[in-house]
Amino acid sequence: MKAAVIMGSASDASKVEGAIDILKDYGVDVSVRALSAHRAHAALAEFVDACNNDGTEVIIAAAGMAAALPGVVASMTVLPVIGVPIKGASLDGMDALLSIVQMPSGIPVATVAIDGGKNAAWLALEIMAVKHDDLKEKLLKNREEMRQSCLETNATIANKYE
Amino acid sequence: MKAAVIMGSASDASKVEGAIDILKDYGVDVSVRALSAHRAHAALAEFVDACNNDGTEVIIAAAGMAAALPGVVASMTVLPVIGVPIKGASLDGMDALLSIVQMPSGIPVATVAIDGGKNAAWLALEIMAVKHDDLKEKLLKNREEMRQSCLETNATIANKYE
Amino acid sequence: MKAAVIMGSASDASKVEGAIDILKDYGVDVSVRALSAHRAHAALAEFVDACNNDGTEVIIAAAGMAAALPGVVASMTVLPVIGVPIKGASLDGMDALLSIVQMPSGIPVATVAIDGGKNAAWLALEIMAVKHDDLKEKLLKNREEMRQSCLETNATIANKYE
Amino acid sequence: MKAAVIMGSASDASKVEGAIDILKDYGVDVSVRALSAHRAHAALAEFVDACNNDGTEVIIAAAGMAAALPGVVASMTVLPVIGVPIKGASLDGMDALLSIVQMPSGIPVATVAIDGGKNAAWLALEIMAVKHDDLKEKLLKNREEMRQSCLETNATIANKYE
Amino acid sequence: MKAAVIMGSASDASKVEGAIDILKDYGVDVSVRALSAHRAHAALAEFVDACNNDGTEVIIAAAGMAAALPGVVASMTVLPVIGVPIKGASLDGMDALLSIVQMPSGIPVATVAIDGGKNAAWLALEIMAVKHDDLKEKLLKNREEMRQSCLETNATIANKYE
Amino acid sequence: MKAAVIMGSASDASKVEGAIDILKDYGVDVSVRALSAHRAHAALAEFVDACNNDGTEVIIAAAGMAAALPGVVASMTVLPVIGVPIKGASLDGMDALLSIVQMPSGIPVATVAIDGGKNAAWLALEIMAVKHDDLKEKLLKNREEMRQSCLETNATIANKYE
Amino acid sequence: MKAAVIMGSASDASKVEGAIDILKDYGVDVSVRALSAHRAHAALAEFVDACNNDGTEVIIAAAGMAAALPGVVASMTVLPVIGVPIKGASLDGMDALLSIVQMPSGIPVATVAIDGGKNAAWLALEIMAVKHDDLKEKLLKNREEMRQSCLETNATIANKYE
Amino acid sequence: MKAAVIMGSASDASKVEGAIDILKDYGVDVSVRALSAHRAHAALAEFVDACNNDGTEVIIAAAGMAAALPGVVASMTVLPVIGVPIKGASLDGMDALLSIVQMPSGIPVATVAIDGGKNAAWLALEIMAVKHDDLKEKLLKNREEMRQSCLETNATIANKYE
Repeated sequence: MKAAVIMGSASDASKVEGAIDILKDYGVDVSVRALSAHRAHAALAEFVDACNNDGTEVIIAAAGMAAALPGVVASMTVLPVIGVPIKGASLDGMDALLSIVQMPSGIPVATVAIDGGKNAAWLALEIMAVKHDDLKEKLLKNREEMRQSCLETNATIANKYE
Repeated sequence: MKAAVIMGSASDASKVEGAIDILKDYGVDVSVRALSAHRAHAALAEFVDACNNDGTEVIIAAAGMAAALPGVVASMTVLPVIGVPIKGASLDGMDALLSIVQMPSGIPVATVAIDGGKNAAWLALEIMAVKHDDLKEKLLKNREEMRQSCLETNATIANKYE
Repeated sequence: MKAAVIMGSASDASKVEGAIDILKDYGVDVSVRALSAHRAHAALAEFVDACNNDGTEVIIAAAGMAAALPGVVASMTVLPVIGVPIKGASLDGMDALLSIVQMPSGIPVATVAIDGGKNAAWLALEIMAVKHDDLKEKLLKNREEMRQSCLETNATIANKYE
Repeated sequence: MKAAVIMGSASDASKVEGAIDILKDYGVDVSVRALSAHRAHAALAEFVDACNNDGTEVIIAAAGMAAALPGVVASMTVLPVIGVPIKGASLDGMDALLSIVQMPSGIPVATVAIDGGKNAAWLALEIMAVKHDDLKEKLLKNREEMRQSCLETNATIANKYE
Repeated sequence: MKAAVIMGSASDASKVEGAIDILKDYGVDVSVRALSAHRAHAALAEFVDACNNDGTEVIIAAAGMAAALPGVVASMTVLPVIGVPIKGASLDGMDALLSIVQMPSGIPVATVAIDGGKNAAWLALEIMAVKHDDLKEKLLKNREEMRQSCLETNATIANKYE
Repeated sequence: MKAAVIMGSASDASKVEGAIDILKDYGVDVSVRALSAHRAHAALAEFVDACNNDGTEVIIAAAGMAAALPGVVASMTVLPVIGVPIKGASLDGMDALLSIVQMPSGIPVATVAIDGGKNAAWLALEIMAVKHDDLKEKLLKNREEMRQSCLETNATIANKYE
Repeated sequence: MKAAVIMGSASDASKVEGAIDILKDYGVDVSVRALSAHRAHAALAEFVDACNNDGTEVIIAAAGMAAALPGVVASMTVLPVIGVPIKGASLDGMDALLSIVQMPSGIPVATVAIDGGKNAAWLALEIMAVKHDDLKEKLLKNREEMRQSCLETNATIANKYE
Repeated sequence: MKAAVIMGSASDASKVEGAIDILKDYGVDVSVRALSAHRAHAALAEFVDACNNDGTEVIIAAAGMAAALPGVVASMTVLPVIGVPIKGASLDGMDALLSIVQMPSGIPVATVAIDGGKNAAWLALEIMAVKHDDLKEKLLKNREEMRQSCLETNATIANKYE
């Protein structure tokens, strides 16, 4: 299984590292790039084109402010593109959210929460699991572990405030 | 190929019909339901559970206002869930957008534009195409047609304002 | 008198502790849980079902971001459910507020201010006081104390700036 | 059972009629008033004082724009006060929502959705049902009917798009 | 000349001190109070009534969150009431701004910027200067000084970046 | 008594006519102008300068979109300037509201509600009443009439829903 | 003098026609295109490249929703690019505004008002006038005419409300 | 080549220094002023008038809050005016953005991102490059350097996460 993670700027790296870790934990080959849609369009097109032909199954694109990256990537591929709005110095990420989610018909971007890098990884895994049955099993197991962990925390909390 | 479309209320039907049409056009078997997360939770769980076991590959969930439906569906499955925020009588769909996109880590919802039913279908097709190569070919052809149609419109506009 | 306080995540605990303290001060038995609507739905349903049958009179539910918890709880009971929007890492709590307050007809959530845990407790007490006359007396006394404290502060301020 | 419905202006009447009808359907005695917090404060205080002493169990207050009414009513009583933000000529009800929900600690208002008059009634019934067991039974029956109606609609929708 | 400054909570004191200083600098007698519209309505009414009869010419009212204070004061007097929205722990003061500025017809509040205590004082002085000619002269002189100070800063800046 | 009403564009006339009528009803001499701060600055300065010298006591300025007019007028006078944000073709008046209310320290604008022309007139009257005792009496009488009218409406509403 | 006007979709044509008319009135050669950044990127790049080499001096780009067009065009040229946010079916143009104005450093877009096609033309003319002195004269004459027209309207308004 | 940079307040200096540096790096003569539209209008008019006659080719104006400065400057010249919204103590710069970008037809302001001083400089250079061919060459070279720097960062990132 192969996935790509593209950030619009190297300063967004800390916001997508969680996603990269999750993907690798699940045995996904991850290519990571920092390629601005506006500053390095040709290199971006070249990379997405490579993704189109090397078995990459899903692309995560994270960007802040005007955040054109996820939509531009989506226009270069029919692979599913997941967009992560990054919170910038003002407007609390609302600018990136609207720039990513309000895509015109025909070129969808699967948008997750502001600074929601981890959920981008989970969504990518769910998408790849449509094809890979063993991944689906692992995701179901993860949900069960998440549930267990939630129940343990709940027990602690219930005790603490008794 | 199988997909499911769930709307939170029958009044949202007109907002997802475009999605149903696109999916059917591409040869997808579509199950459509109107099941509120709040009013008919058991029936919803039963339906999502069926989806989990009948080969459904992606679920589209559309809802307005507090719009818990897509997230609740996502919590019942590891299939990819696409959320469509529906514009209600006030706040221009911003309430539904934030209720759908701001999901906590581990339970992702792939959010598209406000009233973006059609893009939910396109995203669903892209997700299924990860597995189905022939669908990928069809999507690439659609992109080419979209491009051609765009160029024709462009020619008309260029002439009109010459 | 019995009440329940459910938080969507253990990280919200500091935001509801004020509520727990107030309820206990007024002699209310409080059950506290940390149960995500998305990660531990069955345990949540079980807990709310217990509330429905053990004399619990009101439920406080606090959650951030997409904040489905209060609405999901409300769909499981006809006990009054009070929702507390928790401010998250972005959007200043507006996401949680809209996700909680914009409930569809038939499944109400009594929403209080962003991070308004204490007011959730006061509202819970007012609701229980409809049945418990002695609690009503205590609340009236509290209002009087609040008034007195306000007047004392006022005297200090009036002096300070004379 | 007695409840009161106060609107800030007679022009809000159509937004609370649904609430009045629901309350009456459930056998609640309803007093309705149109009393601005700003224009008729003494009459408002007199009415709320009467509510405090005539067995009224819950008060619904609906207002638009600066929407001080629900908070002012809440300051005059320890009865539960439900606030309904009314959408005005601009800002889509966001002004009324924030004016009602962001109450300071100690004086809570149970806020429902913008123009959510009906949910104010449902919440009022749930609050009164804490004391009145037969009302609780009726509300549970209503939930069941809501569920049935939802399932019927669902069947129609499922058929329509088969 | 007499003016009154009312804050909704003692915690707003630092936000109105600038206003008090300016008013005193211009020889205005200032009464300062911390009186919540919701917690100490009778004392507030008494104080505003005193203002109505002791020659007070303008009232400044500052409050955060639901911020009913300025409107409630305005409903108790035909003296000009200036409202100062105070920024709270969330929503950046937008809640207080809308709660104060969106007053219904007939009960105006003269709203200034979020945390704009100083401008409330300047506006109060302008209002009093309608009657007091010598105050008008002082305000014109202040404008001239402000202009001079602006020109001096400008000269420094122009030099610095030459 | 003299007042001036300036609109930024003749298209705003319908939004200030209510203000003009109220002022004339109370015996105020009203000068009305349509002078854009951006298109006719010299004429605007000339008019405000005339106001500064002809006994005008208060200026109302109404504008939409970037809405610089009220602030520019305020910078030309120490007369109290009341700003009316006008709702334009988009953003529901929020652009004009922020452009008018967020004035820097030293140059205040007394801002009223979006499209709140009438309240601008009431505020203007309250300001002039600081000097004119007979006007204050009239305003108190108006408040009493408003109160009576509110009580009559209330009686009608109370009857209607009995 | 040459300028280009690009709209993201033919449905935006009515929003840029005013701009085209103004440019032609001032003797500017205008090329008009409808080229989506997402659907017809190659044709767009080809057109902008032509603009880079045929003496075009400024490019106007109008788009709604995610509105990547102006930024993408800006990344293809060092000609000044003017962005016009188009109001779509929801969010009142705020999505397009933020998507266009919040550009990262190095690739600027000169943003005008929502649906502000005409101002895009005026800005384009001002930019071209930096080079073309006769155009500057015409613009100064236009400002004078605008001023005259404003004064005439003002005279009508002043008379009407006298 | 000559350009002017005007800030509304000396406290905005740090937000425009980046712009001044870029302009000087490209050999532009820069005049810098701190002139409030509201406090020093005459000096501002005098300075803009000087710009109109001394060969200045573009003016950058930066301001926060009500941010009238860029529009007022634009009304005094047919030179292109670039507006920079400065983030203030509240509202995250949204107030300044709307005050600057929503200009009425005929008086355009070229708006850049919140605190986007650097992009104001890049836009100014692009505008001047319409006339100055050598500057255009330098800008193209800068784009190429930006592209190279982006590719280098990308290589580092690609390696780091391999």
